[in-house]
Amino acid sequence: MPTIADLDTPTILIDIDRVEANLQRAQAHADTEGYALRPHTKTHKLPQFAKRQIELGAKGITVQKLGEAEVMADGGIDDIFLPYNIVGEKKLSRLKALNERITLAVTADSPDTISGYARTSTTGKPLTVLVECDTGAGRCGVQTQAQALARQIEIAPGLRFGGLMTYPPKHGVAEANAWFETALELFKQAGITVPTITAGNSPDMWAPGGGPVTERRPGTYIYYDRMQVRDKVASFDDCALTVLATVVSRPTATRVVIDAGSKSLAYDPVAGDLSLGHGLVMGTELVVKSLSEEHGVIEMPVASDWPRVGERLRIIPNHVCVVSNLFDTVTLISGDEIRDSLPVASRGRTD
Amino acid sequence: MPTIADLDTPTILIDIDRVEANLQRAQAHADTEGYALRPHTKTHKLPQFAKRQIELGAKGITVQKLGEAEVMADGGIDDIFLPYNIVGEKKLSRLKALNERITLAVTADSPDTISGYARTSTTGKPLTVLVECDTGAGRCGVQTQAQALARQIEIAPGLRFGGLMTYPPKHGVAEANAWFETALELFKQAGITVPTITAGNSPDMWAPGGGPVTERRPGTYIYYDRMQVRDKVASFDDCALTVLATVVSRPTATRVVIDAGSKSLAYDPVAGDLSLGHGLVMGTELVVKSLSEEHGVIEMPVASDWPRVGERLRIIPNHVCVVSNLFDTVTLISGDEIRDSLPVASRGRTD
Repeated sequence: MPTIADLDTPTILIDIDRVEANLQRAQAHADTEGYALRPHTKTHKLPQFAKRQIELGAKGITVQKLGEAEVMADGGIDDIFLPYNIVGEKKLSRLKALNERITLAVTADSPDTISGYARTSTTGKPLTVLVECDTGAGRCGVQTQAQALARQIEIAPGLRFGGLMTYPPKHGVAEANAWFETALELFKQAGITVPTITAGNSPDMWAPGGGPVTERRPGTYIYYDRMQVRDKVASFDDCALTVLATVVSRPTATRVVIDAGSKSLAYDPVAGDLSLGHGLVMGTELVVKSLSEEHGVIEMPVASDWPRVGERLRIIPNHVCVVSNLFDTVTLISGDEIRDSLPVASRGRTD
Repeated sequence: MPTIADLDTPTILIDIDRVEANLQRAQAHADTEGYALRPHTKTHKLPQFAKRQIELGAKGITVQKLGEAEVMADGGIDDIFLPYNIVGEKKLSRLKALNERITLAVTADSPDTISGYARTSTTGKPLTVLVECDTGAGRCGVQTQAQALARQIEIAPGLRFGGLMTYPPKHGVAEANAWFETALELFKQAGITVPTITAGNSPDMWAPGGGPVTERRPGTYIYYDRMQVRDKVASFDDCALTVLATVVSRPTATRVVIDAGSKSLAYDPVAGDLSLGHGLVMGTELVVKSLSEEHGVIEMPVASDWPRVGERLRIIPNHVCVVSNLFDTVTLISGDEIRDSLPVASRGRTD
């Protein structure tokens, strides 16, 4: 059986035992707490893992871009939520074609976006549209006009109102719940049924159930990373994705240079603080202090012969979702043994 | 003739007229100032542009990883410098195979790395090895042992000492020159000839010639970006690579959300300062203030109807080299007309 010693570097390793444990634990929480789980697959971009998430009980999957949805549909996934405003004639044609193939839902936060959907939809198979709501995160979403948009969707031939969606503020479960409670009251007065309220992110994935939210969309929990550990969602022992790197230079007794830089680990900081570095050396407290494109620099706290040139280190990235997007393939491992190699199917599908 | 209005977003646009002007201006500087230009192709990753750089007078090209070198050799480039410590048996086998096909040089900054080269080289076609020197940047490179490593290379069968290489500190031309002047004196006393001294980066590309450095390796100058403009190397009117994005949301009168996030623009900050944002809207002073993976948020200084949902903006990235690495293809344009579409040949070849 080949092992990770047989791999060239830098490369992504996925510990499938940790993946399975992470998926099961999240699904068990959803089942116990009584919400539907619709995992965000932007993190792994792999139809194989999406299928496993559904097998374990997920209602369907979430993707962030239409290109990702197309790849996941090609990979056999037939229930996809795309919480994004799809804009422009080319994309609307692609959206219509995809809606004819699978169970699909999108979002809108403006009359213009809904008009685009209405223009390209057919009454044969209505397109499900949820209204995106800004419950405090300050990105996309309406702050007060959810009802008017829902009405616009309801009366458009070829569209179906699917409910309300938010990308909630981090640690803002109470804030989002309060927003939705108020909205539900207004919708009730207006006589509009809200089939689904979908929210959720990995940082707040362990929040108890109950409340107005019926569906959650965490993504990072399949692999976890330094950001999630910092948010106390998981421990480093749960982190399933590492970047295998080789020490290529020991210029001083305290400086270690590895062959993974910003083109392998990405520059995304933890907690917005670049001084926290760009990855943790697995099994140690050593941090990748600085990155250039193809070099990562680790400063040792004291002079040390270890690690020597040629030794390999596994790095837990700050943000796994962007790291998945940098590599064409990932290697699945169990312990040190290689079990499979998969193309990152929707890598680069930002379109 | 199709125009950029026909493209889906986000996507990379390359203004070929600006590229040509940028390449010609840099080559003219090299010719006038009397140094050899060996452009770093990590920026564009396109054999077509590498060939044009050589046609205009470049001595050869630079790449940062062996995988990139293999792609460039496949693309018809036959003189490649790889300023990197190549470590590990798999890579050394690939290096040997590549050295048999083209004119190739690599670097080393440790006895271990040189031993690896010696072990896998043949006397039939020696491998050229330059010693990497730390002239102040504090990444890889020897600080004092250049001579000893040069001697190790000289006496190894199958290796040839190619000279000295540095990745200099930014705005550290005088520092690097002083380092090399001292080194050259010591090499002279030891009777070791130094065929090439190679340095240089885009931030200092307009420094005058003369001094010990015989070859420079700027890369970003083909496209330029916000970092280079901030370093006063070029103006925004020289920037040849933009990311075409669509406005997907106008949640408030001052907030604009585009469909390019960190998976299209990368998170790399300008001058290490995240508060400077993640890209400039071409032709304006508007900055992409914050990024999530698939959203970029622009804050307007005053309430404005423009830009509306569906309008397109072109974003000048902070750091083009990492942006090239995020997309599978680039579109070549002249004015607004599309001239060609090219696969980013060595994208993702961090190995």
